[in-house]
Amino acid sequence: MQRQAVQWRRQGVRIGFVPTMGYLHEGHMSLVRRARRVVGRSGRVVVSIYVNPTQFGPREDFSRYPRDLKRDHELCRREGVDVIFAPSDVEIYSRPFSTFVVEEEISQSMEGRSRPGHFRGVTTIVAKLFNIVLPDVAIFGAKDYQQAAVVQRMVRDLNFPLRVIVSDTTREKDGLAMSSRNKYLVGGLRAQALVLWQSIKKVQALVKKKRRLNAAALKEQLQKFIELQPDAKVDYIEFFDPVTLKAMNDVSTGTHMALAVFVGNTRLIDNARL
Amino acid sequence: MQRQAVQWRRQGVRIGFVPTMGYLHEGHMSLVRRARRVVGRSGRVVVSIYVNPTQFGPREDFSRYPRDLKRDHELCRREGVDVIFAPSDVEIYSRPFSTFVVEEEISQSMEGRSRPGHFRGVTTIVAKLFNIVLPDVAIFGAKDYQQAAVVQRMVRDLNFPLRVIVSDTTREKDGLAMSSRNKYLVGGLRAQALVLWQSIKKVQALVKKKRRLNAAALKEQLQKFIELQPDAKVDYIEFFDPVTLKAMNDVSTGTHMALAVFVGNTRLIDNARL
Repeated sequence: MQRQAVQWRRQGVRIGFVPTMGYLHEGHMSLVRRARRVVGRSGRVVVSIYVNPTQFGPREDFSRYPRDLKRDHELCRREGVDVIFAPSDVEIYSRPFSTFVVEEEISQSMEGRSRPGHFRGVTTIVAKLFNIVLPDVAIFGAKDYQQAAVVQRMVRDLNFPLRVIVSDTTREKDGLAMSSRNKYLVGGLRAQALVLWQSIKKVQALVKKKRRLNAAALKEQLQKFIELQPDAKVDYIEFFDPVTLKAMNDVSTGTHMALAVFVGNTRLIDNARL
Repeated sequence: MQRQAVQWRRQGVRIGFVPTMGYLHEGHMSLVRRARRVVGRSGRVVVSIYVNPTQFGPREDFSRYPRDLKRDHELCRREGVDVIFAPSDVEIYSRPFSTFVVEEEISQSMEGRSRPGHFRGVTTIVAKLFNIVLPDVAIFGAKDYQQAAVVQRMVRDLNFPLRVIVSDTTREKDGLAMSSRNKYLVGGLRAQALVLWQSIKKVQALVKKKRRLNAAALKEQLQKFIELQPDAKVDYIEFFDPVTLKAMNDVSTGTHMALAVFVGNTRLIDNARL
């Protein structure tokens, strides 16, 4: 992959990159289309498919994370992806492996707090993939808002010679943010999962009416609302500055909201600008 | 610098890179010549000059580290260096800065133990410089043996698309390893500084005679020998595997030796294969 990328760079061919963990859905495909729009017909679009073990906690769903490389291939083929880069663990983590990329500020809250070590895994694998694929532009989904912010910070701090684009969250018709983990939502869980998007719409409506809201009171109110669902349990609800990701006590237009909710055993996340 | 490097890459121009902290001496120049030999007349040789604050400890010599950019320019000009990249602190560390590269295995002993945070500073700045200069090949001096090993590990682990070459230590006629810090050796200190190289020669001779030596006994003996010099104080003496940098109890042919010695207030290092 790297040899090919070096050659493309030498030929002035632009490289658009969509890093994924596979089990692709329409959200990923919208990132692929965005990459294609940026690099054009003469460019190359690379999709990586790699379920990175180091970004999963010991009790998380690494081993049962959904995989379907055959279906992924078919989706990529239809969308005109030029290369699928699907490395094995031994190719990625040669032994002994001892170098890591860490972001120590905006990775501390929310996903970083709930999932210790998660972002260290993310920044390390993304740095590796950037060095292998050598993209001119990399597309990340806004559904993982904090991840996109951490990657943007890493790219700026470490001077990666590329541009990061954060592309809007793709949603099902009823508002559920697309995610490979939605596969876990069987039976009545699927309907309950809608409560994340409903919470966001609720706060957006409140912010429209009132200019300022108290974050703590809002969180309490939302938690009650969410946990009316029999299988829903709030992990976190956060209101923060969209750039620094610093938590805010006052919620108003432009504040960003993110939440993580367990629906059954499945941990779902969503976020939006208010 | 990065824009120029991207353009060179696009034109298929090979880039050779020598990262330095300036106050250049014949050791640096030998690295420059090595870079030129690798990239050829059609390639470009880049020398960075940056005294990186984050790799100095709070009690170290950052503020008084010798600087002479004018002389550095003249030396580079004579050697046919194509670009000197001498960024300012604000260009390198934009605020807020929060992303670091860490190596957690071979950076733990010797320099890493004596200088906490040193290698985190080194790997972070070198990763940044690699992303800015985009070299095909980077040349490091063997005088900083552990640094070269840590950088090589980082390059492999994070898949930087470049080759690292470690080039032999350049020595004064009497054996003292060239170093910008030799400038500090005034008066009688210069003669005492020779004790590092003398220690190495001593052990090399011993290893030639005896097949195996005990590391602990050897360290004790060497420390006594070194501290016969009135202003010399041993920081560490280490015998280790040249690849893994793991300390060895038995010293024999092929074992690597490194030492750090304070001569007056100046901390000097040296190393060699036995």
